[in-house]
Amino acid sequence: LGELVFVGLGLHDEMDISLRGLDEVKMADYVFAELYTSLMSGLDIGKLASLTGKEVVLVSRRMLEEDNGEEITSAAQRGKAVLLVPGDPLIATTHVELRIRAERTGIKTRVIHGASIVSAAVALSGLQNYKFGKSVTIPFSEDGPASETPCIVIRENVESGLHTFCFLDIKAEEKRYMTIKEALEILLKIEEGKRDSAVIRDRIAVGVARAGSERPAVKADSLERLLSHEFGDPPHTLIFPGKLHFMEAEALIVLAGAPKSVRKLVD
Amino acid sequence: LGELVFVGLGLHDEMDISLRGLDEVKMADYVFAELYTSLMSGLDIGKLASLTGKEVVLVSRRMLEEDNGEEITSAAQRGKAVLLVPGDPLIATTHVELRIRAERTGIKTRVIHGASIVSAAVALSGLQNYKFGKSVTIPFSEDGPASETPCIVIRENVESGLHTFCFLDIKAEEKRYMTIKEALEILLKIEEGKRDSAVIRDRIAVGVARAGSERPAVKADSLERLLSHEFGDPPHTLIFPGKLHFMEAEALIVLAGAPKSVRKLVD
Repeated sequence: LGELVFVGLGLHDEMDISLRGLDEVKMADYVFAELYTSLMSGLDIGKLASLTGKEVVLVSRRMLEEDNGEEITSAAQRGKAVLLVPGDPLIATTHVELRIRAERTGIKTRVIHGASIVSAAVALSGLQNYKFGKSVTIPFSEDGPASETPCIVIRENVESGLHTFCFLDIKAEEKRYMTIKEALEILLKIEEGKRDSAVIRDRIAVGVARAGSERPAVKADSLERLLSHEFGDPPHTLIFPGKLHFMEAEALIVLAGAPKSVRKLVD
Repeated sequence: LGELVFVGLGLHDEMDISLRGLDEVKMADYVFAELYTSLMSGLDIGKLASLTGKEVVLVSRRMLEEDNGEEITSAAQRGKAVLLVPGDPLIATTHVELRIRAERTGIKTRVIHGASIVSAAVALSGLQNYKFGKSVTIPFSEDGPASETPCIVIRENVESGLHTFCFLDIKAEEKRYMTIKEALEILLKIEEGKRDSAVIRDRIAVGVARAGSERPAVKADSLERLLSHEFGDPPHTLIFPGKLHFMEAEALIVLAGAPKSVRKLVD
């Protein structure tokens, strides 16, 4: 009888849920919201509750990861449970694990999709989706020695002419959201002085801040100049372009204020 | 005074627009909808009109590509124009071109994001987003000699342990939407007999049909078996997994009915 419906909240605030998602919440017996895997900077959980007429239980990392989402699956055995998730659900592994666990105990699950930063940042940059290679997360550097993985992935993509999407680390419990400036400093610290590096100060990258909000910031420029560009509040993401199609270069110039020299990257 | 707002319609029907997107349409002076770049199989343009109280003008390929979207930009000079687009806007190049043209003539543009097949199919498969390499489109084979590009991209991704997202061709004017079976036949015809091919009959792939609808179909199996699997109505997409994380293999088994042998792909 019970079921568990994963509903995507989209990018910025309570207005980004779809009409279908809203209906699911209104018909639910239990409503949970997980807000620690991504930052939705405009979201007011009280507004979401009054919009839907439902009490919304905030899910902590501990409840979902250490307790295996027991409270959610147990609610989904008694009735219709909805788990609200930033972006498009199941992009974070922890939700996939919960879904597998629920299905294995006989709970039916469904997904109501939402806008994801993965497609939104691409859309805002004007770059073409199919030309992205493997993506990476840039972790905060205080957690042990800085990983070389992001720089390796960026270099391999650049060598294949592909763009790289970089997720920037977040520590929601500490309200820390990595900025584009911090991400660039971490990458440059790892790479500076290396001979074949793709992360060099005159390379062009694209910073995207607050995708989905009323005032997103999108700026393409050299790393050197992006370091001092004021992107404003988080969340931030970063894209390293590879080779450009003519239309991508024009998009970066017109939509992201890139210097006209990006035309040199046209293949 | 005028502006042009690109609003994503999401995946399946008129219920997939966000509350923010709906508000934008309600406040618009002119509402256009482009429905030929993707199939939204449940969409009823009349329902969308009655939901928003606005007349919705359907945009043809000719109007957008040959006439450069002149009717839309001219409306956006007189007032607030909204262009409704399937999925997340600007994933299709033709919308990026329109946005660039509008900005160049001094029209302000904004984007209201929607759920995209790019993240939705990944979410439904249980595969991890960051492990996807370059994606490809599989074109209908009657348009000249079959392109080897899709097979080359799949092979390169497989060699790097990465997954490949395949967009299947559509010809909306002819109401033709490539099925998973057709896509597999096209790929196998190109590749069969080649020695180093990644597209072989016992390789596992994941078919996803009708993402975002009430009854999406998600099935992981060998190409041989997918050829005779009944996925039902379009739209269809296809994913070729590379190396799998343990959790990805479990997700394919539980969420996509994969044979347990996919565990052999765990890295």
